[in-house]
Amino acid sequence: MVKLVLVRHGESIANAANVYTGWNDVPLTEKGKAQAQKAGELIKQIPDFYPTHIHTSVLSRAIVTANIVADVCHFLYLPMTKTWRLNERHYGALRGLNKDISRKVFGAEQVLEWRRGFDSVPPKQGSPIVDRRYQLCDQHLMPRAESLHQTQLRLLPYYHDEIASRLMMQEDQLVVAHGSSLRALIKKLEEINDHDIVKLEVPNAEPIIYTMDEQLNIIDKKILH
Amino acid sequence: MVKLVLVRHGESIANAANVYTGWNDVPLTEKGKAQAQKAGELIKQIPDFYPTHIHTSVLSRAIVTANIVADVCHFLYLPMTKTWRLNERHYGALRGLNKDISRKVFGAEQVLEWRRGFDSVPPKQGSPIVDRRYQLCDQHLMPRAESLHQTQLRLLPYYHDEIASRLMMQEDQLVVAHGSSLRALIKKLEEINDHDIVKLEVPNAEPIIYTMDEQLNIIDKKILH
Repeated sequence: MVKLVLVRHGESIANAANVYTGWNDVPLTEKGKAQAQKAGELIKQIPDFYPTHIHTSVLSRAIVTANIVADVCHFLYLPMTKTWRLNERHYGALRGLNKDISRKVFGAEQVLEWRRGFDSVPPKQGSPIVDRRYQLCDQHLMPRAESLHQTQLRLLPYYHDEIASRLMMQEDQLVVAHGSSLRALIKKLEEINDHDIVKLEVPNAEPIIYTMDEQLNIIDKKILH
Repeated sequence: MVKLVLVRHGESIANAANVYTGWNDVPLTEKGKAQAQKAGELIKQIPDFYPTHIHTSVLSRAIVTANIVADVCHFLYLPMTKTWRLNERHYGALRGLNKDISRKVFGAEQVLEWRRGFDSVPPKQGSPIVDRRYQLCDQHLMPRAESLHQTQLRLLPYYHDEIASRLMMQEDQLVVAHGSSLRALIKKLEEINDHDIVKLEVPNAEPIIYTMDEQLNIIDKKILH
């Protein structure tokens, strides 16, 4: 039996302002840091949870959450990989837009479709990403907008190669990521269909614990809060 | 021309209490966190310094300093390796002892010799290390006490394989470590002899910048404070 723990980052300034963020790099609020601290305390109490690796995105709100959790749990010494494959879904031209305003501009139905349709791609960002953190990535892989499905497709190779491979060796793993990148991962883990995934919400900083057997079948799921 | 920046962690509670620490895992003081913040602001101002990797020890005081520096410098997304080879010198049975008391117990001359003789090994710790962070290391490699020379011998393989190799590819590097592990590294970089290394002090959180040529010969050294 092995454990996989997933956590969404604490509240960011964009969450607080109800703005689409995606790949924009925004910091946590003070509330978000306190949520990360609480998530750490909850994770610390999971019986026999000793991860060998922490996985996070290259976005500061996830990394800082991971660092706070690691500090509280005495996991600071653990190797931590930061990968764009765990980044939030790329919201394209919606990045930085207030969610209420976007509904007025594009219509509530269209926005709901972009947000919740598994294959819906929001309007693309006009120019390519200019950011040092993606400089060594193949630029053909860098999205200008993503559906949840596309998010899942670029996330799964990392999950299989770096997370599941360690779980198969009976090593517990900790993942700190984002609302939609975690939805994409959970869809795969729980085999949720394209329709039902719409209803799944992943709240900030509430750890989800999966207990798995040797073939990574899920035996138990708990959400801590 | 490539840059290597070395930083000692901010003040720890053991520094503040004038206690030998070594491999004991002690947190930073509030002053130590503020020092790390200031070190970050100094590093942020180094012209054209874009490291590709951050290197630190498996001890929390160095990792937290590295995380604070990374946050200030917008380097959070960078890969960071945490290795026991960059740990502080292992002070053996002196760990946890107040420095004044140790002079009374062992005599000032003996203590000065343990502290400053390049090959002097302090009395060994009685029992082996029991700590999850060293569990996957070959236990034959784990010291129970170290001279500065022994510290250098276990540190240099990491320097050559993981730091120098990247510098050779013209990639700037950032190292956040400890007073004596940095002394051991600086001794090698600057080819300081066994006698003169005694006088070298590495203050908390004052970044040292080496500028090197293609063969890693040092062209310039600056200390920021």
